[in-house]
Amino acid sequence: VTVEACSVVPIGVLRTCWPDRWGVPRQAGLVPASWAVLELASHVPTDAIRGLEASSHVWLITWMHAVRGTRWTVRPPRLGGERLGVLATRGPHRPSRLGLSAVTLVEVDAPGRRLVLSGHDFADQTPVLDVKPYVPWADAIPGASTSWAPAPPAATPVRFSEAAEQAVAAQPALRALIAQTLAADPRQGSRDWSRVVVRVEAVDVAAIADGDTLLIERIVPWEARRDP
Amino acid sequence: VTVEACSVVPIGVLRTCWPDRWGVPRQAGLVPASWAVLELASHVPTDAIRGLEASSHVWLITWMHAVRGTRWTVRPPRLGGERLGVLATRGPHRPSRLGLSAVTLVEVDAPGRRLVLSGHDFADQTPVLDVKPYVPWADAIPGASTSWAPAPPAATPVRFSEAAEQAVAAQPALRALIAQTLAADPRQGSRDWSRVVVRVEAVDVAAIADGDTLLIERIVPWEARRDP
Repeated sequence: VTVEACSVVPIGVLRTCWPDRWGVPRQAGLVPASWAVLELASHVPTDAIRGLEASSHVWLITWMHAVRGTRWTVRPPRLGGERLGVLATRGPHRPSRLGLSAVTLVEVDAPGRRLVLSGHDFADQTPVLDVKPYVPWADAIPGASTSWAPAPPAATPVRFSEAAEQAVAAQPALRALIAQTLAADPRQGSRDWSRVVVRVEAVDVAAIADGDTLLIERIVPWEARRDP
Repeated sequence: VTVEACSVVPIGVLRTCWPDRWGVPRQAGLVPASWAVLELASHVPTDAIRGLEASSHVWLITWMHAVRGTRWTVRPPRLGGERLGVLATRGPHRPSRLGLSAVTLVEVDAPGRRLVLSGHDFADQTPVLDVKPYVPWADAIPGASTSWAPAPPAATPVRFSEAAEQAVAAQPALRALIAQTLAADPRQGSRDWSRVVVRVEAVDVAAIADGDTLLIERIVPWEARRDP
């Protein structure tokens, strides 16, 4: 069997709380405090989203633009080194570069041609190829299972240093987003498990491993890092 | 926002029980007796599906090759004429041409480089862009809803004429597939509700409306129709 390439024009691009892919969790739903805004591309009429507010959740098929290269086999973090075929996992290094996520639809802003989403796993600037309503009787399959991933990964305990706590004292929503982002453990897939730096919104968050806990040492605006 | 096209090479092509799109149900899961075989494309190493047998169900992202054209608004059959944006529905006339279906994984035939699937909604020869394992804790969202589609469409009652019954007397699996295909009511989207002809495997099935029931009048091999 040989086949020709299929070409899809994105219906829009996402702005999200994670400026690069390093803070992105491994599945949608792990970070409820996450937010994203899909702005419709200019060729898509506003009518195309008419009635979408009837859905509590939507599927997004995305183009994982930040992922580099295909790996035909991968090591899912929870399997501790065992290799599976990439098509047997939800890992990002897929031949298609297609992402699939069920996310919460917070708001349909039709005049603004925008969808507001939460509980996602999208890096900023991710193109969106399709939006589909979540249809429970077709999508939520009783008894369906993938035996090696029966439950969400356990949340990593997170602590804020005094300095980190002060840095977000006036921003409780950002604090929650940072805490959930680190609890989803963005060290997965990295070689250095002793420390992690991730960008969340307009800040860099630096944490170190402290036993089983991730200790957030510093929360610093990007600008400060660029021009110290 | 303007965006460039994204190009995806299919990982394989489906052989299925519906030779054309007229018999295909409106969602996966409506016709449990349906079967499909995904054969991996030659550029995909067999290793890419290693471990997939750990999943009871898989997502397929497909290229709906048999669908002609984009419609920005559509009339979902169950809404009786009301127009919704195509992105607010699961209808096929999408700008992306991307299909999304959760289906039963019956068998992983690694030596044969094939996946055997059931409970699908794929026309024969549909290209597959991606396969992903079904992950219940991410994909089956408690309480998620689309208000106008709270439950599967009611099954249309189906009867076999004596001639139709005799035609499949020795093929109980084909009989079940025909009965389920018509119970999912392939008249949806057609203008003539008085009769329907659909292809199932190697036969043409002709049915007429008899009150609320679809009466299957004839089941005839293709060959007979081509050369009467």
